[in-house]
Amino acid sequence: MTGPSTSSGGGASTSAGGGTPHPRLSLNQATIKYANLDEALRATADGGYEAIGLWREPVHEVGLAAAARRLADSGLRLSTYCRGGFFTVPEGPERRAAIDDNRRGIEETATLAAAGAPGSRAVFVLVAGGLPEGSNDLVGARARVAEALAELAPDAEAAGVTLAIEPLHPMYASDRAVVSTLQQALDLAAPFDPSVVGATVDTFHIWWDPEVLPQIARAGAEGRIATYQVCDWKTPLPADVLLSRHQPGDGVIDFASLTQAVEATGYAGDIEVEIFNQQIWDAPYADVAARTAAAFGAAVAPHLAASVPVV
Amino acid sequence: MTGPSTSSGGGASTSAGGGTPHPRLSLNQATIKYANLDEALRATADGGYEAIGLWREPVHEVGLAAAARRLADSGLRLSTYCRGGFFTVPEGPERRAAIDDNRRGIEETATLAAAGAPGSRAVFVLVAGGLPEGSNDLVGARARVAEALAELAPDAEAAGVTLAIEPLHPMYASDRAVVSTLQQALDLAAPFDPSVVGATVDTFHIWWDPEVLPQIARAGAEGRIATYQVCDWKTPLPADVLLSRHQPGDGVIDFASLTQAVEATGYAGDIEVEIFNQQIWDAPYADVAARTAAAFGAAVAPHLAASVPVV
Repeated sequence: MTGPSTSSGGGASTSAGGGTPHPRLSLNQATIKYANLDEALRATADGGYEAIGLWREPVHEVGLAAAARRLADSGLRLSTYCRGGFFTVPEGPERRAAIDDNRRGIEETATLAAAGAPGSRAVFVLVAGGLPEGSNDLVGARARVAEALAELAPDAEAAGVTLAIEPLHPMYASDRAVVSTLQQALDLAAPFDPSVVGATVDTFHIWWDPEVLPQIARAGAEGRIATYQVCDWKTPLPADVLLSRHQPGDGVIDFASLTQAVEATGYAGDIEVEIFNQQIWDAPYADVAARTAAAFGAAVAPHLAASVPVV
Repeated sequence: MTGPSTSSGGGASTSAGGGTPHPRLSLNQATIKYANLDEALRATADGGYEAIGLWREPVHEVGLAAAARRLADSGLRLSTYCRGGFFTVPEGPERRAAIDDNRRGIEETATLAAAGAPGSRAVFVLVAGGLPEGSNDLVGARARVAEALAELAPDAEAAGVTLAIEPLHPMYASDRAVVSTLQQALDLAAPFDPSVVGATVDTFHIWWDPEVLPQIARAGAEGRIATYQVCDWKTPLPADVLLSRHQPGDGVIDFASLTQAVEATGYAGDIEVEIFNQQIWDAPYADVAARTAAAFGAAVAPHLAASVPVV
């Protein structure tokens, strides 16, 4: 799971339900993992979306400058840039490489957000990383996340970029992200200005948390909702639990209560659908874009405040 | 996954490492799922254990009175009786059946604990149950857990039984247990006397929780640690995530900090190893008993206070 690549899969555009996507809906590129940058921008723009969440690998493939031009040409907003983090290893060359890579990611985020349509958000999503190989020192790994944020915050601030710590579902705590709850993400963000360090609110990862509603309210009150991402949870989980995400409405997550909680904070940014799911990855990009718009329209959009005030 | 049954598997006793089990180590019968009651009692007693955690199905197979006699004959303590719960369905015949079944479980617990060796604990472990079919009302399901506890508490109190709410890992929140954290379990237990409603502290389910150490301390301070269970977490998870438990020391859980936290509360009861793992289920029972004792001896026992005070 290293994000989109340009291998086989997807491609030919056939139509599939949907209508016009909600104006705040953004297609996270991971949902069409096999699309290269051009294919992703095209599927998203042709699908009637106004925004896209980009991943680093497809951007690197064409180079940052070219990627920025193509994003600008697409007319799409950038909703987030995915992803940095993976900085739980102890001090040493591997950690230095991770920090440097995050610095480049911050710069890329700033460049792409500047190139995107008005309303683009310079948000760099951070996945903390798991326990280092052979370690069971969860407390230490978490402390290194805090240290990494302290090291990167000045760069983010200088670049006008918000670092969005993403709590991942606890089933990924050992191998992907030692940040497991929104509360924990907010505690990690607390030492920093909210414009510099915020949190990613992703329904898939936090829907189960008995504290999720008060923590969403807290995130809003502290100004730290950097992005809102939606996809659904369903069991049984597939053999690879990284690929267990579903279109909103296809599982058991209560998008009404979570979305209303986010709306109640005043969050008015784009909302991404980010799905890792082999079946969805194998479908034509245009179909995925259309189905995602339809799923969002049915399961999430009804819980959003009207985007244009009535006069 | 309905606990031990008496199908094939296991059986012939061959020796495997270990030495004498720690005096507080109890073998939860789920670890040798295919053993019937006699086989489980024999493997546990012959393995040098002093305690066992029993499951309902093998008890029902021989009948409660016979099971109590056999437990008494084994000379083993009862550490817990597994399991009740599964009461998240709305009011109606299915819910009434679940409540009645829990009432029978409470009576069984009392009978078995009275038959076990001195030091037996009348602890009935409760797994809350998941979202009812077709429902995404997590808040409602959790409310029904609270209602079930209120309904069962008088029975438990009358029988001298402690109900031990078990928070399960959040990856089971939709289909097994809507109680996902120790904090939540303690909040559910709060209205009741600690001798009536407590919590199961199981490393596998809560190791990832950033709040786990303060919540263990809270559980101790409130007198609500009804049982302490240990097994390990390792990735990648198997295709069936219910079977992803490992012997202590075979994964990434920090048994030092968790065990010291439990010890610091003054909890002095038995400690169960409860493992759902196909490979372990397929091994001879005596080998599993020996390996469990060795794993516990290496990974958990060093963090226990000396069981006999020095004079």
